[in-house]
Amino acid sequence: MLSPPCSVFSSSSSSSAFSAFSSRAISSSPQPHPAWSSSGGQEAMGGPPPGFRPSGWVHLLHQVPHTNFQLRPVASTFAPQEQDYQQALLLVAALAGLGLAVNLLVLGLYLLRSCCRCRRPKTGPPEVSGSPDGGGCVTWSCVAALLLGCAGIGLGFYGNSETSDGVSQLSFSLLHANHTLSSIDRLVSETVERLGSAVRSELTTLEEVMAPRTELVAAARGARRQAEAVAQQLGELAFWRDVPLSPIRVAEGVSFVEEYRWLAYILLLLLDLLVCLFTLLGLAKQSKWLVIVMTVMSLLVLVLSWGSMGLEAAAAVGLSDFCSSPDPYVLNLTRAETGLNPEILHYYFLCNQVVSNPFQEKLTLSQRSLASIYSQLQGLEREAVPQFPAAQKPLLALEETLNVTEGNFHQLVALLHCRGLHKDYGAALRGLCEDSMEGLLFLLLFSLLSALALATALCSLPAAWAHFPASDDYEDPEDDDPFNPQESKRFVQWQSSI
Amino acid sequence: MLSPPCSVFSSSSSSSAFSAFSSRAISSSPQPHPAWSSSGGQEAMGGPPPGFRPSGWVHLLHQVPHTNFQLRPVASTFAPQEQDYQQALLLVAALAGLGLAVNLLVLGLYLLRSCCRCRRPKTGPPEVSGSPDGGGCVTWSCVAALLLGCAGIGLGFYGNSETSDGVSQLSFSLLHANHTLSSIDRLVSETVERLGSAVRSELTTLEEVMAPRTELVAAARGARRQAEAVAQQLGELAFWRDVPLSPIRVAEGVSFVEEYRWLAYILLLLLDLLVCLFTLLGLAKQSKWLVIVMTVMSLLVLVLSWGSMGLEAAAAVGLSDFCSSPDPYVLNLTRAETGLNPEILHYYFLCNQVVSNPFQEKLTLSQRSLASIYSQLQGLEREAVPQFPAAQKPLLALEETLNVTEGNFHQLVALLHCRGLHKDYGAALRGLCEDSMEGLLFLLLFSLLSALALATALCSLPAAWAHFPASDDYEDPEDDDPFNPQESKRFVQWQSSI
Repeated sequence: MLSPPCSVFSSSSSSSAFSAFSSRAISSSPQPHPAWSSSGGQEAMGGPPPGFRPSGWVHLLHQVPHTNFQLRPVASTFAPQEQDYQQALLLVAALAGLGLAVNLLVLGLYLLRSCCRCRRPKTGPPEVSGSPDGGGCVTWSCVAALLLGCAGIGLGFYGNSETSDGVSQLSFSLLHANHTLSSIDRLVSETVERLGSAVRSELTTLEEVMAPRTELVAAARGARRQAEAVAQQLGELAFWRDVPLSPIRVAEGVSFVEEYRWLAYILLLLLDLLVCLFTLLGLAKQSKWLVIVMTVMSLLVLVLSWGSMGLEAAAAVGLSDFCSSPDPYVLNLTRAETGLNPEILHYYFLCNQVVSNPFQEKLTLSQRSLASIYSQLQGLEREAVPQFPAAQKPLLALEETLNVTEGNFHQLVALLHCRGLHKDYGAALRGLCEDSMEGLLFLLLFSLLSALALATALCSLPAAWAHFPASDDYEDPEDDDPFNPQESKRFVQWQSSI
Repeated sequence: MLSPPCSVFSSSSSSSAFSAFSSRAISSSPQPHPAWSSSGGQEAMGGPPPGFRPSGWVHLLHQVPHTNFQLRPVASTFAPQEQDYQQALLLVAALAGLGLAVNLLVLGLYLLRSCCRCRRPKTGPPEVSGSPDGGGCVTWSCVAALLLGCAGIGLGFYGNSETSDGVSQLSFSLLHANHTLSSIDRLVSETVERLGSAVRSELTTLEEVMAPRTELVAAARGARRQAEAVAQQLGELAFWRDVPLSPIRVAEGVSFVEEYRWLAYILLLLLDLLVCLFTLLGLAKQSKWLVIVMTVMSLLVLVLSWGSMGLEAAAAVGLSDFCSSPDPYVLNLTRAETGLNPEILHYYFLCNQVVSNPFQEKLTLSQRSLASIYSQLQGLEREAVPQFPAAQKPLLALEETLNVTEGNFHQLVALLHCRGLHKDYGAALRGLCEDSMEGLLFLLLFSLLSALALATALCSLPAAWAHFPASDDYEDPEDDDPFNPQESKRFVQWQSSI
């Protein structure tokens, strides 16, 4: 193993002849070394960190055939700006409209048929006058349908919450990315400013103090040039400085829309729940007017359910198209919005072994310049301080500035590395494509169950209602009424007992 | 602004006199510069990234008084290894046992009273024989209670899923942290190995080729010593190498336990749901034997609900104690399990402006050594290659190794920075203290609603059952039976019409 004791190095001064090349070497290779581009992160990444993988649902929904209004097939690549793709999604949504039309048609025909049968003159014993499916059966099937609807509403609440969770994760990731990007900017500004002020004040003082010895002044000037080079290199690393896109504003926009989406669904779910519960109450109390009002409300909510189903289906298909390969779309969109170098965007969005760090060269050059400044300051301290005691103070201040700059440099290396921002990207994708997708599917299931339940209820409500007692202001079937099933039962029991 | 053109630096060779101090300077300061500890991340962090904040529920539950079995107050700091604290949590769980006892007592007394009233001889018309709360009212209140129970079951499914999500996030964060830690290890091993092989082969070849000129050989030896120093410094950065704790194994353990917890809850929820639905079916069909079986099952599920409520209450209080200030406990536990330097643990778990980077010094020294090796290689290339053309090949190979090492070094700086691992820690905490906590509260609500619903159902079931028709093998009340309420109603209607 390579583990010589530290003391071995304290006596090494044999390399004096070549260290002088460092400053030239830094500026003489503006084009990257061929080895950089191939080996920057080749063996080091150790496989990408556990990230986002599209789920089975994404793959399944991505297979849904896409056609435009002329029924010509459309590529299922996510492209919301293209008219053909928009038409494909609208067609998916229109399927729900078709479902609503068929549903209403079937419902109308069924009710018409029931109505015709109801209007036949009542003759003979009750076995004949009742519809073939007895009133009790009708009521219980209606109750079962409404309970199914309530279960669907539970799923809807869950789905709405999951969707919201996913979008929150997206917003949170955007905020985190914004924090990283603004930290890079701030770190670069602070470091550049600090270096600049050190160059302006301490190095100038130093040069004035050491004016009698020109070779020392020349060394200080060398350090000044290196510091200026570092400041310039670092300044170029703040790649997000003049970008017009602010992740925080995107996050705010997303949260704003999501808030209203969430609220709209909560209202729809509550409306649905109220209709189910009041219909159940109407059936329990055998209150005609309540059941009639709820029949009308059910019709309204049925239309809303089919409408929301259309929106959800289109959103789920669109989201699955996006999630099946999100990178190209996000890359193109970000490139168009930010005007950033594609190399930088690829580095952050892909962050794998193939893409090399676009900042590697600037970082290495800065690092070498910083090391060179350090060695020059150490030399000045050794050579100049015995002769010019006044040089000690600016030299110490410069060393401290250098130490801070090196600390900041390491932070900057960490912040610029793709790992952090790519993790935010992965978390945003997971939020959108796992949580929100799952939530959307649950909302779809809710809409489907709700539509089924309401359609069944609408079929059976008029039949159940026809079996209600004739009196309209009939409120409490439990009390003293011979038509009340309980009371009539007791009456029959009492009759048979006497 | 400091933006001189690059060409300015290409002619700088005035600093030759001082660059020679670099190698000495590196090894002569083994103790960190005072400026390091204070300014390493002082101004650069720009505020901590958006992280974990304990929620209101955590604060509220943390306020629950903690006492041991002797009812002496216990500190509410999370300390699961302390007997007093364990006793405090057991007492919280025991409250649910008390609740169960009271519930069973009240239930027994109520049923006893109902039973006594039932056994009174039936005299007079049915208005007198029925209990004051009519059978219908009893049935409907039982149905309402069961529906409330079903709503609670929905909440339970949601809570179970949320808890599971939170624990998944914890596992995911642990896997991510493991990836980072193993990447550091692998990166260090690879880099050290690559440097070692370069020192053994290329540098030895170089020294042999340049043997005639001793000052060049001395320069190569200088580079060799620097490379060995870098290898040693980097080797010391792989801080997780001999640590006995594997985050991946912790994640596996957590997932294993969570899988069984999830399954147990699903089974409990399904059992609860089945009991509710079959009881409703029994009421609908007026099937005596079904209602009797379900009464017994309800009693069993009632006990299970109170039991789970106790577990959840204790878990929620314990989790809130943990989440109100997780850092000290996690720090102590990790220190005990890993035996790592507290400075390193503080750096990763706190990651704020106060804690300086414990690797800063080693990183800076490595960086300077790398820059120094680079300048020495450049010097050798310029001085030796014209004289010894055979030196060019090993020199190029060495430069490539150096470039790869610098790339790896920047990756290592990024991986070692607290930002990545601290983000994993924050995500794990958010998973546990937000999602799992929320899920646990929903589960608690489920247990409470379930217990209430079942207690109500148990109170009303015998009363409802007493109102069922006498025949025990009574299966289908809809068909041809005069005791069927629907049929009896129709019969009465028919009687009144003729």
